[in-house]
Amino acid sequence: MSEQIIAFSGSVLDRADHVRSDPEKLAALTNWRARLLRLDGLAPVIGSDGELEWGTLAEADERAELVFLGLSADGRACFAAVDPALVGTGSTAPPDPRLWQVMGMLSPGDLAVYGGAKALVDWHARHRFCARCGHATRLAKGGWQRSCTNPACAAEHFPRVDPVTIMTVEHDGRLLLGRQPRFPPNRYSALAGFVEPGETVEEAVAREIFEEAGIRVRDVRYVASQPWPFPSSLMIACHAFAESDELSIDRTELDDARWFSRADVVAALRGEPDAAFGAPPPHAVARHLLTTWVNS
Amino acid sequence: MSEQIIAFSGSVLDRADHVRSDPEKLAALTNWRARLLRLDGLAPVIGSDGELEWGTLAEADERAELVFLGLSADGRACFAAVDPALVGTGSTAPPDPRLWQVMGMLSPGDLAVYGGAKALVDWHARHRFCARCGHATRLAKGGWQRSCTNPACAAEHFPRVDPVTIMTVEHDGRLLLGRQPRFPPNRYSALAGFVEPGETVEEAVAREIFEEAGIRVRDVRYVASQPWPFPSSLMIACHAFAESDELSIDRTELDDARWFSRADVVAALRGEPDAAFGAPPPHAVARHLLTTWVNS
Repeated sequence: MSEQIIAFSGSVLDRADHVRSDPEKLAALTNWRARLLRLDGLAPVIGSDGELEWGTLAEADERAELVFLGLSADGRACFAAVDPALVGTGSTAPPDPRLWQVMGMLSPGDLAVYGGAKALVDWHARHRFCARCGHATRLAKGGWQRSCTNPACAAEHFPRVDPVTIMTVEHDGRLLLGRQPRFPPNRYSALAGFVEPGETVEEAVAREIFEEAGIRVRDVRYVASQPWPFPSSLMIACHAFAESDELSIDRTELDDARWFSRADVVAALRGEPDAAFGAPPPHAVARHLLTTWVNS
Repeated sequence: MSEQIIAFSGSVLDRADHVRSDPEKLAALTNWRARLLRLDGLAPVIGSDGELEWGTLAEADERAELVFLGLSADGRACFAAVDPALVGTGSTAPPDPRLWQVMGMLSPGDLAVYGGAKALVDWHARHRFCARCGHATRLAKGGWQRSCTNPACAAEHFPRVDPVTIMTVEHDGRLLLGRQPRFPPNRYSALAGFVEPGETVEEAVAREIFEEAGIRVRDVRYVASQPWPFPSSLMIACHAFAESDELSIDRTELDDARWFSRADVVAALRGEPDAAFGAPPPHAVARHLLTTWVNS
């Protein structure tokens, strides 16, 4: 099984940090040549050519804040608008299943552009007030900052990226996978959980596996990372070895967790009708972990 | 040169997630046997035995919110208090140089307990209001959540962990290190920067090196991670190979960046008086990166 591209990576835009921090440069680029990413709420709008649709800044609601996504290869500034209808709402839920189908139509580069834009617009929609003093905030640095409007506070807030560990666990040639209640029937995937303050990635992996499956692990190895804009995670994918295969499953977190053989995982990745379980979908870094393990 | 323990990892407390999410269990453990971590503002208080000082909950200001840090080996609940004097203030600055000396006195396990507590208390001090609606928030789940008090909003907020890449870059047997303006004289260390929405760890490494030093890299490899509570980072340490050694330094970010030979790095790590530069201090994961490279 061949390695996949990590979904949501490989953006075709240059983030152009030097533009964000220079109001004059940014203003000069906010012109009639600039491109506006078309969004349907927080979902992508895809043209008949299968690519992301772009318009001009004239299309943006005049009340909308503009987020500078970066420069296109031809030097045009690319923006997304924070739709006033999203303000104070945004989205923290996992994506609508129909959204997966839409996203599956995009090229990897376009998917990465959409993912970055979605994470940023969603963050602006959900971060309207200063967490420190409660006053309103305003967009700054082309959308890579929000600043408190209370002069006595003037706190600066930055788009949030939440590191999440996601891990395959191996014991005696078999792989531990689990089912979350929201999964489609028969789907099993890698266990996962947020990294907390005060722990390394490796400690977070060990804690999550112990909390959810009751087993101790050793030799935690980093495999890959993925930006995951639902709403703003950085998936840090790891592989670990279990000290035992005796599971004690946390049923408040998981419907089930089971050990699967290499043949089971291969059949699931191939989508065979009699496979022991349904594999995680193509965009998920969990699928990359399974593929990496099968190929190891 | 031997490998070091990653500073701020290896906490001796059990985070006991099942306690946080069970108000009755948490209330039962909030008793006269519980321990309160003594803090001087956000700095640790260290006893004559060189260990963190703990008191009882009776010492906490009666207006203080309590953060549940976890269970000690003898099953006692351990807390830190959010000092009302810190509320709305907290700290985002790099630590006071004197704090390094104090922290250097602690065992690795105690340093990890302090680091986790500091990150959490600091977060509560700086997050008093709901970013979505502006209403006040209150501590929930033993301090691992804040909940909006506006019933129409009811947003849940979680302690923030900001992933940061920090990287050594190699070319032709030499290592690229840089100087930030705030460094002590002659100190050089690994380049670093926050991971942004919409990029992988590897993409963030490549972008930061290009922004700060003007060079392209390949073969980015993960080395280690470290919780860094100033104020709430997760350092993700990587090594990369440069395509060229022709630097173009961003002087707004760096005072300088230079290539150092293996002998230079060895002399710096040994603290030799005629070393070409001063190495990063013992707690920094940058030092771990240098040691790993010298040993590779």
